[in-house]
Amino acid sequence: MDLTKLATSIDTVWVLIATALVFFMQAGFAMVETGFTRAKNAGNIIMKNLMDFVIGSLIFWILGFGLMFGTDLGGFIGLPDLFSRGTYEHLGLGIPLEAFLIFQTVFCATAATIVSGAMAERTKFKSYLVYSFIISAVIYPVAGHWIWGGGWLSKLGFHDFAGSTVVHSIGGWAALVGAAIIGPRIGKYTKDGKSKAIPGHSITLGALGVFILWLGWFGFNPGSTLSGTNVDAISHIFVTTNLAAAAATLVTLIVTWIRYKKPDVSMTLNGSLAGLVAVTAGCDLVSPVGAVAIGAMSGVLVVVGVELLDKKLKIDDPVGAVGVHCFNGVFGTLAVGLFAASGDNLGLFYGGGFGLLKVQLIGIGAVGLWTIVTTFIMFKAIKATIGLRVSEEEEISGLDITEHGINSYADFEVKAFGEYEANPIKIKMES
Amino acid sequence: MDLTKLATSIDTVWVLIATALVFFMQAGFAMVETGFTRAKNAGNIIMKNLMDFVIGSLIFWILGFGLMFGTDLGGFIGLPDLFSRGTYEHLGLGIPLEAFLIFQTVFCATAATIVSGAMAERTKFKSYLVYSFIISAVIYPVAGHWIWGGGWLSKLGFHDFAGSTVVHSIGGWAALVGAAIIGPRIGKYTKDGKSKAIPGHSITLGALGVFILWLGWFGFNPGSTLSGTNVDAISHIFVTTNLAAAAATLVTLIVTWIRYKKPDVSMTLNGSLAGLVAVTAGCDLVSPVGAVAIGAMSGVLVVVGVELLDKKLKIDDPVGAVGVHCFNGVFGTLAVGLFAASGDNLGLFYGGGFGLLKVQLIGIGAVGLWTIVTTFIMFKAIKATIGLRVSEEEEISGLDITEHGINSYADFEVKAFGEYEANPIKIKMES
Amino acid sequence: MDLTKLATSIDTVWVLIATALVFFMQAGFAMVETGFTRAKNAGNIIMKNLMDFVIGSLIFWILGFGLMFGTDLGGFIGLPDLFSRGTYEHLGLGIPLEAFLIFQTVFCATAATIVSGAMAERTKFKSYLVYSFIISAVIYPVAGHWIWGGGWLSKLGFHDFAGSTVVHSIGGWAALVGAAIIGPRIGKYTKDGKSKAIPGHSITLGALGVFILWLGWFGFNPGSTLSGTNVDAISHIFVTTNLAAAAATLVTLIVTWIRYKKPDVSMTLNGSLAGLVAVTAGCDLVSPVGAVAIGAMSGVLVVVGVELLDKKLKIDDPVGAVGVHCFNGVFGTLAVGLFAASGDNLGLFYGGGFGLLKVQLIGIGAVGLWTIVTTFIMFKAIKATIGLRVSEEEEISGLDITEHGINSYADFEVKAFGEYEANPIKIKMES
Repeated sequence: MDLTKLATSIDTVWVLIATALVFFMQAGFAMVETGFTRAKNAGNIIMKNLMDFVIGSLIFWILGFGLMFGTDLGGFIGLPDLFSRGTYEHLGLGIPLEAFLIFQTVFCATAATIVSGAMAERTKFKSYLVYSFIISAVIYPVAGHWIWGGGWLSKLGFHDFAGSTVVHSIGGWAALVGAAIIGPRIGKYTKDGKSKAIPGHSITLGALGVFILWLGWFGFNPGSTLSGTNVDAISHIFVTTNLAAAAATLVTLIVTWIRYKKPDVSMTLNGSLAGLVAVTAGCDLVSPVGAVAIGAMSGVLVVVGVELLDKKLKIDDPVGAVGVHCFNGVFGTLAVGLFAASGDNLGLFYGGGFGLLKVQLIGIGAVGLWTIVTTFIMFKAIKATIGLRVSEEEEISGLDITEHGINSYADFEVKAFGEYEANPIKIKMES
Repeated sequence: MDLTKLATSIDTVWVLIATALVFFMQAGFAMVETGFTRAKNAGNIIMKNLMDFVIGSLIFWILGFGLMFGTDLGGFIGLPDLFSRGTYEHLGLGIPLEAFLIFQTVFCATAATIVSGAMAERTKFKSYLVYSFIISAVIYPVAGHWIWGGGWLSKLGFHDFAGSTVVHSIGGWAALVGAAIIGPRIGKYTKDGKSKAIPGHSITLGALGVFILWLGWFGFNPGSTLSGTNVDAISHIFVTTNLAAAAATLVTLIVTWIRYKKPDVSMTLNGSLAGLVAVTAGCDLVSPVGAVAIGAMSGVLVVVGVELLDKKLKIDDPVGAVGVHCFNGVFGTLAVGLFAASGDNLGLFYGGGFGLLKVQLIGIGAVGLWTIVTTFIMFKAIKATIGLRVSEEEEISGLDITEHGINSYADFEVKAFGEYEANPIKIKMES
Repeated sequence: MDLTKLATSIDTVWVLIATALVFFMQAGFAMVETGFTRAKNAGNIIMKNLMDFVIGSLIFWILGFGLMFGTDLGGFIGLPDLFSRGTYEHLGLGIPLEAFLIFQTVFCATAATIVSGAMAERTKFKSYLVYSFIISAVIYPVAGHWIWGGGWLSKLGFHDFAGSTVVHSIGGWAALVGAAIIGPRIGKYTKDGKSKAIPGHSITLGALGVFILWLGWFGFNPGSTLSGTNVDAISHIFVTTNLAAAAATLVTLIVTWIRYKKPDVSMTLNGSLAGLVAVTAGCDLVSPVGAVAIGAMSGVLVVVGVELLDKKLKIDDPVGAVGVHCFNGVFGTLAVGLFAASGDNLGLFYGGGFGLLKVQLIGIGAVGLWTIVTTFIMFKAIKATIGLRVSEEEEISGLDITEHGINSYADFEVKAFGEYEANPIKIKMES
């Protein structure tokens, strides 16, 4: 046992604990997405969350990891390495390869799971599985390679510490494209185009999900150091991550209080997530004050973004995933160019000029373009073949009973969709 | 990388993981408090829990941390240090300052969040935010300075290892004062003063909260060593913490079984928390047998305490927060004077005489007095200005719909308050 | 501070964090078992889960730990050591004894808690407490001694790394015996012996429980190294554990989709657990591909096993505990003999011949026999004395109201058992 071995041990323990925390974010997403949607679709949402982790875990190991971290091919992609059997010495890891593999696996699964919320309550289960496979096998790993795998964006100096762009904006762009293509839920918009709120079935489960996600972020961001011996960095990242989330939550509360006359519960909970997403790219470089500033802005942006989508663009995103992950993933990445207070390149507000900002914009644009184009093709292809959306009857009855043959709350009277309409339709339960 | 650096790394990793666990206690409190209260107030309780963490995170960083840990001014208070920018070299920390800051932040937030349960289902949201601000900015940091910040009680030899007094009794005293001033919920007492049980809406969520809190305590207590290299201490504290909780739970079960003829679910769950609170002050110094003794006594005390408050004092504490945190925070601190089996001063039962016991009593009294006086002034001032309590109509309709415009369980038939009374009043839902 | 001390610190921190994660599995079991059973029994299930941990924590410390890890007496049992006061130098631990004690305590409690699910909704609370005491005091520690305490099976070379046999099969065999002796729930089988599904009351809570258990397994398996400095092992175990769970989930999904025409939610969730249980014995020795193979087989086995029990043997196991823990605990232990790719003895598929397989079969048989015989005597003795099963009236009314005097969901209309029958019987609520 020598000093280097001990340092490696500390780093490995740190990364594996972070892995466990990031894994637990799957539970957080599952609770947020099911809590903020209707009871008749609860089991279906759970299954989508479970299966995208399952499929992601398998295919990222089989294919994705190699594409993302394999030997760089022209800056665009890693050398395919089926079943991740290579040595990956070019990465110069200070931890065992398998620790790095599992850490990256849970990150990949986080990106994939974002989409389920935006397309909830109307997407075919089978089609969702196909989507999960493609994003984890190809779309995420390729863009991930550009930034974290030694690809062209990393060479430009693009900074996305823990994945505002890599994880959240990829998930968010895919969510936006998917929600736009699949169209709004039945009853979401009146004939004259007015948006109607469709309340979730359990604010308590949704809130629990947000607390779990906040917890998970303490693995997500400081874990991305890949090093527990980098004590100043991990301590700093804990502070900036928490302050940004706190500031975002407070600002969202205030904004909704002013706009809607009452402090809005689900939007404020989304505000916490918005702050966490936004600080993710720069959590290592921004100061505590910078983190608060980023958080505060993200708290405004999530409200504006959700309203824009809902009222102007008429894109139905049941849980606000696009506002949280896409808009704030983009904003947070941009904010590095403004608020970076340390590192090789300072941000605009810290005397670094427009240099970093420009690179950040290139990265945002490139990843956005890549994700929009590939997911557009993917969702259109799914739509044209096996179909993307359940039938109207299935949607009204709920996906739990029609896709899985269950009632997720068999001991309770659950209102079906019709309860929100003039003509109530009761769930036909199997007993 | 040298030996000292590695030791610092282990300590920092330990403290940050403990921070994450203690943060997660916010989810535990949210679930306990919402589960043990009514469905019509679920979203409101969630928001109070979320916001006291948010406000606490911000104001403790801006002001509280300096007051608590800044250069000692006469034993009473730390030198204010806006935005925690000092070096705090006088603390002689073995970990980065930011790791210590975030660890202390989640402790502060734990104290603040205790009150929301005791004042649940009738406190104005706005007023709760003001309370959150004041306790995290001033009340907690000042008393915290006395004990953990190098103030007068620490110089006397007062021992409160992880916060039976600093965290739990401060939260508990504030809860007592707040619940007394705001008065009981409508329908809690009959005209002839008989107490009526108002059952919570989800025992499962409440129980989940207790499990989460128990988990969090494995960060709370052993994390308070601030050192992962202190292997004997952290291992010992895991054992004493768990044994005390187990003994308390078992004793509460038995006591309720005898008194109420049936083993009581929510009281037994509170018994677990009582044991955890009670062992917190002395978890480092008591033996496993001592921990069991403390836990067993706390299991009796929580039943007696909750009954005293409910039936004799007629103070309505919906979730039993005072019985758990105030009474057992005080008892646990006292118990150090009885059961301390190691350390500079032994407890009475271990041949140390009355010395430590006396100091413990002084600390209990001083912190109790400070908290009672300051929170009394605070709650009275809030009452006299913006008002402390919602209107009767709002309380009957529920705070979710009146304060936030939501129904937290929109897909279920939720009984409103009136269901417990002769004349049922249905929640007016917005759809 | 020297190198050895630092290594010990890393190992201790690792084991204690794993302890916290394994503790949290209690919450996972509580949620799975309550979510997959009916609302009228929710509080009762919670209490059983809580109390078996509580009783296990106390009695394992008082008696069980000594029986399991005390000085070996003829390979069969450890020297009793009341209150675990020995030095246990013969164990050659690299961590403090108390860290090892608490880690083993949470393992013991995991075995105990498996039974509550299989015997749910009809077992007397009092009788369950007696069962909890006996399994934690004697049944688990004795068999545990054989394998992990230096007993006869460990000397044979039996390999059960983290407890497919020690923890899961013991819990699973006890669950099988208990469920068989107590008989099916009222209404589970029609007069002509046809099995009827009795749906759980909250798929969301059940799913949350599965996510929590999956998280806990990242403590359960890699924590069983007792060493954070064994970086290759802990990293590898993270990967194999996760891959097996993922493969099992996917295969279960596919199998149910084919057999039942729809992808089954609760069975798929059980599939995740099946994979986790199965890989537990060999997670250190099998390759990633081996882990996927084991997981895939377990995903088939859990479906076949649950059906066998339910339809052929007519043993009513409300949550599928026997299919998950018994069948897959046995299978996973056997699989080591097939898939062990490293270690002193290779598996059959890796050129090691039948040697290890034979030893694994002996261990499976011995532990199975021990647990079946002892739990058979225990449950029969309980049945003959204080009784094992609640009355028919109590079962129909629900155990929450009859055993504990509560309605776990007081603000909701809860369907009682009768809702599934022609003649509905409403829960009589106390308000």
